Amino acid sequence: MKEAGDKRICIGILGFGNIGVGTYQLLEMNHSHIKETSGLDFEVVRILEKDVDRPRPVQVAPGLYTQDADSLLTAPDIDIVVELLGGIQPATDFMLKAMAAGKHVVTANKAAVAAHFPELRQAAIANRVLFRYEASVGGGIPILNALTTALTANRFIEVKGILNGTTNYILTRMAEAGLSYEESLAEAQAKGFAEADPTADVEGIDVANKLSILISLMFGERVAPEDIPTVGITGITPKAILDAAADNSRIKLIAHAKKTAAGIEYNINPMALPLSHPLASVSHEFNAIFVTGDGVGDLMFYGKGAGPLPTGSAVMGDIIEIGKAMAKNSAYDPVVPGGPLK
Amino acid sequence: MKEAGDKRICIGILGFGNIGVGTYQLLEMNHSHIKETSGLDFEVVRILEKDVDRPRPVQVAPGLYTQDADSLLTAPDIDIVVELLGGIQPATDFMLKAMAAGKHVVTANKAAVAAHFPELRQAAIANRVLFRYEASVGGGIPILNALTTALTANRFIEVKGILNGTTNYILTRMAEAGLSYEESLAEAQAKGFAEADPTADVEGIDVANKLSILISLMFGERVAPEDIPTVGITGITPKAILDAAADNSRIKLIAHAKKTAAGIEYNINPMALPLSHPLASVSHEFNAIFVTGDGVGDLMFYGKGAGPLPTGSAVMGDIIEIGKAMAKNSAYDPVVPGGPLK
Repeated sequence: MKEAGDKRICIGILGFGNIGVGTYQLLEMNHSHIKETSGLDFEVVRILEKDVDRPRPVQVAPGLYTQDADSLLTAPDIDIVVELLGGIQPATDFMLKAMAAGKHVVTANKAAVAAHFPELRQAAIANRVLFRYEASVGGGIPILNALTTALTANRFIEVKGILNGTTNYILTRMAEAGLSYEESLAEAQAKGFAEADPTADVEGIDVANKLSILISLMFGERVAPEDIPTVGITGITPKAILDAAADNSRIKLIAHAKKTAAGIEYNINPMALPLSHPLASVSHEFNAIFVTGDGVGDLMFYGKGAGPLPTGSAVMGDIIEIGKAMAKNSAYDPVVPGGPLK
Repeated sequence: MKEAGDKRICIGILGFGNIGVGTYQLLEMNHSHIKETSGLDFEVVRILEKDVDRPRPVQVAPGLYTQDADSLLTAPDIDIVVELLGGIQPATDFMLKAMAAGKHVVTANKAAVAAHFPELRQAAIANRVLFRYEASVGGGIPILNALTTALTANRFIEVKGILNGTTNYILTRMAEAGLSYEESLAEAQAKGFAEADPTADVEGIDVANKLSILISLMFGERVAPEDIPTVGITGITPKAILDAAADNSRIKLIAHAKKTAAGIEYNINPMALPLSHPLASVSHEFNAIFVTGDGVGDLMFYGKGAGPLPTGSAVMGDIIEIGKAMAKNSAYDPVVPGGPLK
């Protein structure tokens, strides 16, 4: 049987925005470390990107860029397609096409994964390739890996998550600096923690995508993001923040799902959490996911939910996992993790 | 190629104390769930245990018990040997013998893993079997899995951990109830959070074993537990606790290791952490590990560091991972995770 040795694994990246650059940068920074510890030589061989001239903090050989998606999705020299375009389409079609061509797929795209989770997972199984999306929930926090590997002896009971750094930053600054929602949003935009159009973040749409993915993995049920009752943070007043503080609590935007005898309950709401709750002290742009399993009890995972390098850490983690499985001829999922979706 | 199907995986357990019972109980509780989600049928077929008559919260067929270690370690019908005896010997020799006989090995035994990490890991590689020890650090918290899979794109910079539930319980009760060390220890003993002889916990010996394992995995260097400068909590006075509180801090027993230009620094000390630090609010018997990587930045993992079911969750997680790898004929580590130890 072939050992890992110096096996070369070739990566094609779709989209070279912040996460693409972070992934590339992390691989460049730690290439020799990764090679030494995994026995694998990962190389980015092609990048689908129109905006070649945009200033970026990494140097990329111009020959790596292409504007022809098929030159990544179906190219014989590519092992892993890394989808970092964002948005549901054409990202989903690209991922399906890559899997049909026998490519393993890694993505950070919560909108596409949440919208088409069953098809994407089924395509991976049907084509005997791996499909991984750790970066789609919680950025650099390795929550999906934990749920699908180390914690699989548990039946999950509940999840409560702070899954959006923008809204957590805004709520933190309202509480600690007495800002209004509008002032805090403006500050977040100035610091790069909120986009010019913050709707997807502040209305909870981004969080709904992430909660949909968590529900699929934890409870084996498919709930479309648009079916999750969702309240964002635009209605949070300084008075509500002060009232919570007076009650030794902090308001956090909480994605919640719980298994009950009647089925799965789920919603996204600003909630006042007592300071004694581990999620209450998760501040600024940090994310955290609080999970309860019937064996392990309460667990919390805390870290950076966004940013090029933290998200790149999750993307590269998926890539390395796939590379290791390729070296063992085991890069396929024989059984759907979490069981068939209901 | 053979698919997972209903493959039966046979487990032998060495030692049927709290963790053994917790592991057995969790498998019993969630057997059908695990079978459905993994496609694997795990079964405990033999238990090495002298004290057969001790009352336990699980019903075990008397025929499962044996007092002949070899009937597990080298038996043709056993796939995975689960070492839950505790103590360095005979546990280490048993694990080495099992691996030499081609058995995969799972353990929760931090003393044995810390004392003989290089030999145990090398034996697994030489015998092409898997050796897993998630439960040896942080109980149910899946920290070792994260460090060795999802986070492998990072070079690790630092770790700070609350790795012992007994000492954290004692310090928490001293702070919240104004107890003396002696009063708090007595309460912990009454509640089952501390042993009759608490030396290994309160003097930091247990923590040193866990930090040694973390240093091996994070930094690829071997530091024997007895070489880690260690101060326990027996000298912590109510005055020190009050002084910390007045300074908006809490005293925690912190296992610390950091990579510097000069090498790895490491020590175990009671430290006053500001309330704003995520570790400061880790209370009672909970554990938490705060890790910094050069890509992912700061991460924290929080959960129950002990207890039959939480520790059983980690043991069963390792068992399921090995079963899945067996079903793919990939149950071996071709490269030492973390690189060769220096």
